[in-house]
Amino acid sequence: MPLPVHWVNQQPDSSLSTLDRGFAYGDGVFETLRCHRGRFHLLEQHLQRLQLGCERLEIPCPHESLRLHLHDASNYLRSQELADATLRLTVTRGSALENECGRGYAGAHGAPNVVLSLYSARLPWRAAPPPLHLICHRTPLATQPLLAGIKHCNRLEQVLAAKAVQRVGADEAIMLNQAGRPVSAVAANLFLVIGNNLYTPDLSECGVAGTVRGVILEHLADACMIHVEQRALELEELYQAQELILSNSLVGIQSVASVESQHFSTTRVADKLRSCFFDWVDAQAQ
Amino acid sequence: MPLPVHWVNQQPDSSLSTLDRGFAYGDGVFETLRCHRGRFHLLEQHLQRLQLGCERLEIPCPHESLRLHLHDASNYLRSQELADATLRLTVTRGSALENECGRGYAGAHGAPNVVLSLYSARLPWRAAPPPLHLICHRTPLATQPLLAGIKHCNRLEQVLAAKAVQRVGADEAIMLNQAGRPVSAVAANLFLVIGNNLYTPDLSECGVAGTVRGVILEHLADACMIHVEQRALELEELYQAQELILSNSLVGIQSVASVESQHFSTTRVADKLRSCFFDWVDAQAQ
Repeated sequence: MPLPVHWVNQQPDSSLSTLDRGFAYGDGVFETLRCHRGRFHLLEQHLQRLQLGCERLEIPCPHESLRLHLHDASNYLRSQELADATLRLTVTRGSALENECGRGYAGAHGAPNVVLSLYSARLPWRAAPPPLHLICHRTPLATQPLLAGIKHCNRLEQVLAAKAVQRVGADEAIMLNQAGRPVSAVAANLFLVIGNNLYTPDLSECGVAGTVRGVILEHLADACMIHVEQRALELEELYQAQELILSNSLVGIQSVASVESQHFSTTRVADKLRSCFFDWVDAQAQ
Repeated sequence: MPLPVHWVNQQPDSSLSTLDRGFAYGDGVFETLRCHRGRFHLLEQHLQRLQLGCERLEIPCPHESLRLHLHDASNYLRSQELADATLRLTVTRGSALENECGRGYAGAHGAPNVVLSLYSARLPWRAAPPPLHLICHRTPLATQPLLAGIKHCNRLEQVLAAKAVQRVGADEAIMLNQAGRPVSAVAANLFLVIGNNLYTPDLSECGVAGTVRGVILEHLADACMIHVEQRALELEELYQAQELILSNSLVGIQSVASVESQHFSTTRVADKLRSCFFDWVDAQAQ
């Protein structure tokens, strides 16, 4: 059986109840994982963020069954000898009860639904992907500290931004917050190289705290001997940076070639980080 | 066959592809309609808002097929002699393609999915429902003019607010915006009676422009000989109002008994509006 394959609550299935609250309200969280030779990259980081998301949304996180699900998916990839794949893992609050108690935002529901989808993937491994051309997206992200950082399923802002990117033929976009400060790209986190320092926007008001971003902050900056810091960044700093870098769980580390008419000519720090990143991923596999 | 019944793309079905973008990202819009004797209340108002939502989200609105769907649902209710029901009508952007092109926020997808769910309902008709006890919800709604007014499927703010309401045993909550001004209730619009005037919050930054709210603004205020106005309202004005009124497509017009420790003793304007509202609904049926 080729990819994609889907599981719903550990059964092979590609359909879900219309009463699922993920469908009704985007009432859930998800993770997108890269898989190489049956092993999921940054698995613990993804599971930690999923758990944080569940806590924030008051969804009981089905830890035990998640591990079993992932084990099944990994076995499937090995049995099919599929070296590369991506996995979308979604946990929703559950399906609304079929009676009147199930109605509405606080309606009664069953246990969380867990949906896994495995897709085929051709992603670069260690090789540098081509630097990206970005636009600056005009619609700022909403401020909602309650939902900031986690990867919940309310993603209309990203959907509309991604469509705007596609419309003009760009690769990605800088997303701004309500104060006009850069937050991230649409589907990646953002790092600025200024001098020998690496800066990434603070995500306490909006944005998603990416797993690769977390690894850079906690492990790679040290390994690469570069000082790294999270803080509020001004848009002018972005345009004045020597180098811009995006991080994302599927591609890893990507360089930015341009934002609007501003070009960035060096990829020095990105290349170094990418090399450190894949070393780190390999070391985790030992 | 008893209620609930579900249709997916006009086929009787209670399941949906796991690739549906409503499930993945809350990437769709919905309406909740009240149905009485096979007729949907405020049908044109609901369809107008759905269309506006589709335009805002750049989803091609399937007008023609929607009418056919609704006709089927109405026939079903008549054939089963079900006098009262509620309908959830959802339109999502469609299901992502199964290949790599389908991946991500701007991924390629099929035609919009239309999902209808009919539920049994016991809702008051003309009789005044008991006045509600409200709390003031602490987490303000995010500012996002792009998504304000429409009834999209990104509803985590409402889900979490409804859970907070449930936790303290209240009936509903006042939702505030980022400036601390009242916007609406969790699942209803809000009106303040001050003197012989009716005020409802401006919804250009957040909130859902309800269909009953629209009817009050456009038709009922005149019929009830009360001046009505949309504007930014201060929280102090809410506490100083003579009367608070909620409007919602299922219940219609509801009085507020209290917000936190502040009690409201009169239901005079709400009772008048409710009577006008049901007269208007009946007149539309002629």
